[in-house]
Formats: sequence, structure tokens, C-alpha cells
Amino acid sequence: MQNKQIVLNSRPAGMPTTENFRIEDVEIPQPKDGEVLVRTLYLSVDPYMRGRMNDRKSYIAPFALNEVIVGGGVAEVVESRDENFRAGDIVTGMLGWRLYSVAKASELRKIDPKLAPVTTALGVLGVTGLTAYFGLIDICNPQAGETVVVSGAAGAVGMTVCQLAKIRGCRVVGIAGSDEKNSYLTNELNVDTTINYKTEKVREALAAACPNGVDVYFDNVGGEISDAVLLLINKGARISICGQISMYNLERLDVGLRPQPLLLINSATMKGFILTDYAPRFAEAITQLSKWLAEGKLKYAENIIEGFENTPRAFLGLFAGENLGKQLVKVAEDSRQ
Amino acid sequence: MQNKQIVLNSRPAGMPTTENFRIEDVEIPQPKDGEVLVRTLYLSVDPYMRGRMNDRKSYIAPFALNEVIVGGGVAEVVESRDENFRAGDIVTGMLGWRLYSVAKASELRKIDPKLAPVTTALGVLGVTGLTAYFGLIDICNPQAGETVVVSGAAGAVGMTVCQLAKIRGCRVVGIAGSDEKNSYLTNELNVDTTINYKTEKVREALAAACPNGVDVYFDNVGGEISDAVLLLINKGARISICGQISMYNLERLDVGLRPQPLLLINSATMKGFILTDYAPRFAEAITQLSKWLAEGKLKYAENIIEGFENTPRAFLGLFAGENLGKQLVKVAEDSRQ
Repeated sequence: MQNKQIVLNSRPAGMPTTENFRIEDVEIPQPKDGEVLVRTLYLSVDPYMRGRMNDRKSYIAPFALNEVIVGGGVAEVVESRDENFRAGDIVTGMLGWRLYSVAKASELRKIDPKLAPVTTALGVLGVTGLTAYFGLIDICNPQAGETVVVSGAAGAVGMTVCQLAKIRGCRVVGIAGSDEKNSYLTNELNVDTTINYKTEKVREALAAACPNGVDVYFDNVGGEISDAVLLLINKGARISICGQISMYNLERLDVGLRPQPLLLINSATMKGFILTDYAPRFAEAITQLSKWLAEGKLKYAENIIEGFENTPRAFLGLFAGENLGKQLVKVAEDSRQ
Repeated sequence: MQNKQIVLNSRPAGMPTTENFRIEDVEIPQPKDGEVLVRTLYLSVDPYMRGRMNDRKSYIAPFALNEVIVGGGVAEVVESRDENFRAGDIVTGMLGWRLYSVAKASELRKIDPKLAPVTTALGVLGVTGLTAYFGLIDICNPQAGETVVVSGAAGAVGMTVCQLAKIRGCRVVGIAGSDEKNSYLTNELNVDTTINYKTEKVREALAAACPNGVDVYFDNVGGEISDAVLLLINKGARISICGQISMYNLERLDVGLRPQPLLLINSATMKGFILTDYAPRFAEAITQLSKWLAEGKLKYAENIIEGFENTPRAFLGLFAGENLGKQLVKVAEDSRQ
């Protein structure tokens, strides 16, 4: 057995490149009491991780230079020194980008591979689903008949949001970056109207797609796409700021349409959030999401790249809009297979 | 008795001028059943009225060209054809800019001149006080020890907000446009720190004034002052968008710092509102404000210009930052005097 890890080689200036990452050979660590040695099966790459690569204040601490990158993962227990886990268990938690890691048992959650594919723990039954759930249901509370616009609609969070809004009986308008993605949204997820922001004039297309204005906007992208949506908001609109992928690689704060006058004349609310704000309510949401998944009301898409060494490339692909649904890296087979 | 009215002569392009208004001689109207003829005593001029002078969508319908301007007023009943009012009563409501008006009785509220000066019905016990109350208490819910920043702090709403935040036990930082105004805020209203945005570098002065960041921002002005405040917000900050006086005279939507990334990383909320959103709760707020006023916890300032024909000039002065506190026009003495 050999171990490898991927560290932050340098901080990105603007758009990250493969040069910002470095792969290293390392020892396989030994678990202490209360710890577990795990073998990584899947790693999640997510846009928010770009923020941790800067050395500045954000909602979580920056990654340190020359230290391992940390993100969501699914792993198999190799050796346990905690009574709650044993070898062969499949677990999820925040893991280093490593083949083998030692984790505190208290920071891992066991998952049942019989209930759903283990990768759902990183997606629709994990951070992705929870983010969609609280960002839409809690902040926006969409009502039947309202118009809900989702940017980044074909990303993992976005497509879950689209479906939750459909479950609520809303008219859903999804904005994504390719006709292939939009076909998926329309044909598989029953999104009412889609807009391809790369080929259409977003302002005109949105105005046509939202004849009754916009009641709810779930914002994954920011920038000019958001400006176009904000110009159409209705009285009492709710705007959930989930991500600003168009901003993450900018070296300074962006300048654009000031939304304050539009919020004022429409008595509208705009709220940013991060998932950990809702930690006390995760169980409630997972129960609800699992039920919809079992009933077939909630679908998910995954884009899986094979090979640990391709993890940085999978991450970079997020910013090129390559992924339909959740972007994962398959690092290893589990031992059942 | 002779009647006069002031109508919208032309729509302002950018900053309004006296040319946008026209004074006319008109007949004194006759009240029908359920109506009341009143003689105007005071007129309120307010920044939001600028929005109604544009011919575009906002939270209330635009004023019509060549029609009388309508705003808050205090008047004395001359002749009543409604059982709830009689000659000599002092009333408040939305009145035309006229010496004599006919109003529906159902749209007037009787005020008791013995409880407080009648002008308070247009200020601290009227639209001004209600706006401050709901915009601060309901949207921001400030907690003892938090830092509250108020822009337009020496305006009628702003100075009430400052005092409500002090009643809540907050540290209050007021931003206004003259040292005279700031002295009033500090010496009369116990505001903790003030910033003169015309003579100080707002970003540096704010950073110095808010060593623990900003928890609540009550925004009357928008623009670059707001940008400076937003750069300092804390996790969980609440931002009440009450007014955007820096925007009202712009001919297109303004461009500047996009707040979305800052709301995201701080899980912060920004909400626009207009007072009518809270109409069902006005009585609750007036009761509370009257109590604080009686206890001496709430002070108010008025800037009263004499003479009906000076109403447009009083309105224009709002945008030059001339007024300390509530800007009113005294049209006539009441008949008790």
C-alpha cells in the first residue's frame, strides 16, 4: 500500500491552474484511539473550495500552502480504533485529498450502501441536497404558481433546486451554459423553460421566459446573469445567494448593477447563506430528501472522473461549466466490488 | 377664501428644479357625503416623492403631469359631511399640495393636539417614526452590544433610527453631511460616533469607528457610502434598505460594488421595504413610539419652512442635504392660535 496526497502548491491568481496543485508521496498514517484509518473511494470537488485557496477572510479558513486540500469524500474504513466503526464500513465526511487518511470518528458519518449509491452522500443526500433544500425552502419559501429562476441550474445544487421548486408547484426557469444541459433540465427534470446564457441574450430571453416577473431567484453565479434576473423581480421577491461562481476567480470585488434600489422598490429580500448555518436541521432535511428520492420525485446527475491524480483537473472543470450535475472523482473501488 | 394648488409641471430629468412645479389658482371644492373639507396647516416633503415624479414602475403610482402633488399633511377640518369629524378637528392623511382640499373621511386620522405638537403626526409619530421602527426593529432586530450604522443619520428617519438603536443598547455610528448635524447626533441623541461624509474619507473613518465590524446597517442613502459599510459587515449582518437618496435623481440604474459576494460570505440579509408593508401593525408601533416620546427617550428635530409657495423649494432642499430632521412646510396657523 502506498499513500499519496495533493497539496496547495501556490495560491491561484484569478483562474486556478494545475500548477497550483502538487501531488506527493506520503506515509500511511496510524489511527489513535477514537480515530479511523480510511481508504478514499470518491472525492467531491466544489466551487466553494476556490474561496479557501485565497489567503483572505471568508466563511471558512483558507487552505494553507503546502498542506493537503480538504473537501467532502466517501471512504471505506480500513482500521478502526473507535467502537462505532469497523473495517469495511462506508463513511462520509471532510477528507483530505489523499488515498488514505486518518479521521476522527466523531467527524465521520456511516452510510448504508443498500439505501442509495454511496455517491449520493456527496450529492443529493449530502452537501448538495442540503444546500438546495435550505437555500430554497428556508430562505425563499416558494409558493405554488410563483416563478422561480435558478442560475447554474445544471450544476449539482441547481438541478436539485429546480426539482424542489417543481415539487412546490412553481413555474421554474433554469439558466445553464449548454443546450445539452438545458435538454436534461427540460426533459428529465421538467423544468418549464431554460435559457442558454452562452448563446442567448439573457435579458431578452429572461423577460420572455418570465411574463409574470420573478418571485424567487436562487443565485449560484452572480454577475450579469443576476443583474438580468434582478431587473424582473416582483414585489416581495426572495433572493437566495448560494454561490457566486462568476466571482470566485476575480482578484478584486466586482462592480456591476447595484441591487439596492430594486430591493427597495419591490420590498424584496436578498440573503446569503452557508450550509453550516443550518447544521441543527440537517437530519430533518435528509429525511425529507430521502423520501422524495425514494418516491422518484428527485433525480440527480453525476459526472465522475476516474483517477486520484485527476482531482485538480476535475476541480478546474467546474469553472469552465463542464459538469452536468455533481462533479466527483472516483479514487478507488470499494472492497465489495 | 382663495384656493391654490401645486402641480407637476414637467417630469424632472435627474435633479428636480423649481421649473418642474407650477402653482395654480383653483376653486375650493365642496365635500360630498362621507367627505371632509380641510384647510392645510403643514405639508411634509419626503425624498420618496422624487420616485413618483418619474413615469416608471415603483412601489407607488407615478404622479400625473399637470395634476396636484400628493403627500403627507396635517389640516384643520372646515366643513365635515361625515359623523366622525367636525369643524376645528385637526387631522392627518395624504393631502394634495393645496390650501384647501376635500378628503374622504375614511382616509383621515384625527390627532389630539394636547398629546404632542400636531407636526409629530408627520414625523416621529407618523410616517417617519413608523419607517424607523419597522425598518430597524422588524428587519434588523438589533441586539444590545451590536454595532449599528445609520446613513442619512440626521434626516428625520435616520435620527429616529439612531435613538431606537440606542434604546436597544447598541453602539451607534451615524453618517451625515455636516459637522453641525453630527454635533446634534452626538450631543442630543447620544450617538456614539459620527462621520461627516463630505469632509472625511468614509472607508477609513468607518473602519476606525467600527473596530468590531458592522452588525446592522440602516441604509437611507445607497451609493458609495453603502459600499463602504458593506465591506465591514459581520457574519449574520442585517441590512435594511429604507431609502437610496443618492439614486433618486439618477436617470438610470447605478453601477457600483456588487454586494452579493459580501452577503454570501457573511450569511447576511439585505431587505428593502416600504412602510405600507407593515400597515396592520401601525397601532402597535405608534403606541410604543408615543411611550418613548413621553418618557423623553425619543427626541425629534424639525426644519420648518413657512409659506405654501415654498413647498417645492423645501422639497428640493432634501437633495442638497439641508435639513436636520423632518422637513415640513407651514402653510397656515390653526384656528386655535
